[in-house]
Amino acid sequence: MKLYDFAPAPSPRRVRIFLAEKGLTIPTVQVDLRAGEQMRPEFAKINPWRTVPALELDDGTVISEASACCRYIEEIHPEPALLGRTPKEKAVIAMWDHHCEVEGFLAGAEALRNEVKGMSGRALPGPVGYEQIPALAERGRARVRHFLTELDERLAAVPYVAGEAFSIADITAFVVVEFAGWVKLAPAEEAVALRRWLDGMRARPSAKA
Amino acid sequence: MKLYDFAPAPSPRRVRIFLAEKGLTIPTVQVDLRAGEQMRPEFAKINPWRTVPALELDDGTVISEASACCRYIEEIHPEPALLGRTPKEKAVIAMWDHHCEVEGFLAGAEALRNEVKGMSGRALPGPVGYEQIPALAERGRARVRHFLTELDERLAAVPYVAGEAFSIADITAFVVVEFAGWVKLAPAEEAVALRRWLDGMRARPSAKA
Repeated sequence: MKLYDFAPAPSPRRVRIFLAEKGLTIPTVQVDLRAGEQMRPEFAKINPWRTVPALELDDGTVISEASACCRYIEEIHPEPALLGRTPKEKAVIAMWDHHCEVEGFLAGAEALRNEVKGMSGRALPGPVGYEQIPALAERGRARVRHFLTELDERLAAVPYVAGEAFSIADITAFVVVEFAGWVKLAPAEEAVALRRWLDGMRARPSAKA
Repeated sequence: MKLYDFAPAPSPRRVRIFLAEKGLTIPTVQVDLRAGEQMRPEFAKINPWRTVPALELDDGTVISEASACCRYIEEIHPEPALLGRTPKEKAVIAMWDHHCEVEGFLAGAEALRNEVKGMSGRALPGPVGYEQIPALAERGRARVRHFLTELDERLAAVPYVAGEAFSIADITAFVVVEFAGWVKLAPAEEAVALRRWLDGMRARPSAKA
């Protein structure tokens, strides 16, 4: 098993932290997104969607999409369980992880990719180049702000994003919060619960992944 | 268990088809999105994200997000397996389902919600009203077109979206293709593989769900 990765990028970081929480180390291949290496024909053969992370299994199958990579890892290395144990836990964790991805991660990407000059013509990941839409950068920022507020409310009620136990939803939310820093958005001073949780996440050894 | 639903909406349809493929019938509560019923305080108590589908379990827990609802149903009614059996199958299906959701479903929603007059101020689902961005409607249409082309290529190579077996990824892709009709986008005449698969999907009893 090996991971196509790009160390500075937030999306593969979700998988790196997941692996670290499992206590696993696997070989990685760096695909330099800043140099556009994902658009090279060699990489298109590995992942036609031109994204990292991509997890190559020993039989050559390539699993793309961070959440699907994590699903595979959980199946083959169930402990510690990060996707839940009971049907209800699995569903609640899947719900929160999905929510953090769509409302947090995609919102952050919307803000960054439509704003930063270096991403002109690359407003979405993937094989097609889309032009930036300035109004979408602004909307992305508003959505990230809303997400951070909502996350603080959630973490005032429960210790972890999906409830009582640490899960993949914390990993996704943590990557979102750090990614939000790229567009200079941070938890408000008064977001006490979010800041406390964030300190806890940053203190975990996996935060270095 | 009961499903908060809105019969005309594509997102809860994913769960309705999933239930039908499992041979399950559960009570549904219609939440009229056209009348804005999801914004009422009563519904906010059920799902603060103000979306359907939402699956209420017998203990009162509410599972939101179509993919998480399906995860729960698969766990308690494993047959026929729609999320895969082996670790590899589970990951490949998760990858395709995620791809169809983000590149197909969200693209279709981008097109519709930024274009249709009745969705003015409602360009995204959820509690916050966002204004329409005309350039985003256009981008959404381009993305849906790309998705349909890519789906045709995929289905020229394998019988079902995630490979050899029918899965949740077919359900998501099917809902996307029918949803694309709302913005008057349809598979091209020459998309023979996609059209053949679509005929097969429409012939399944679950298509009525």
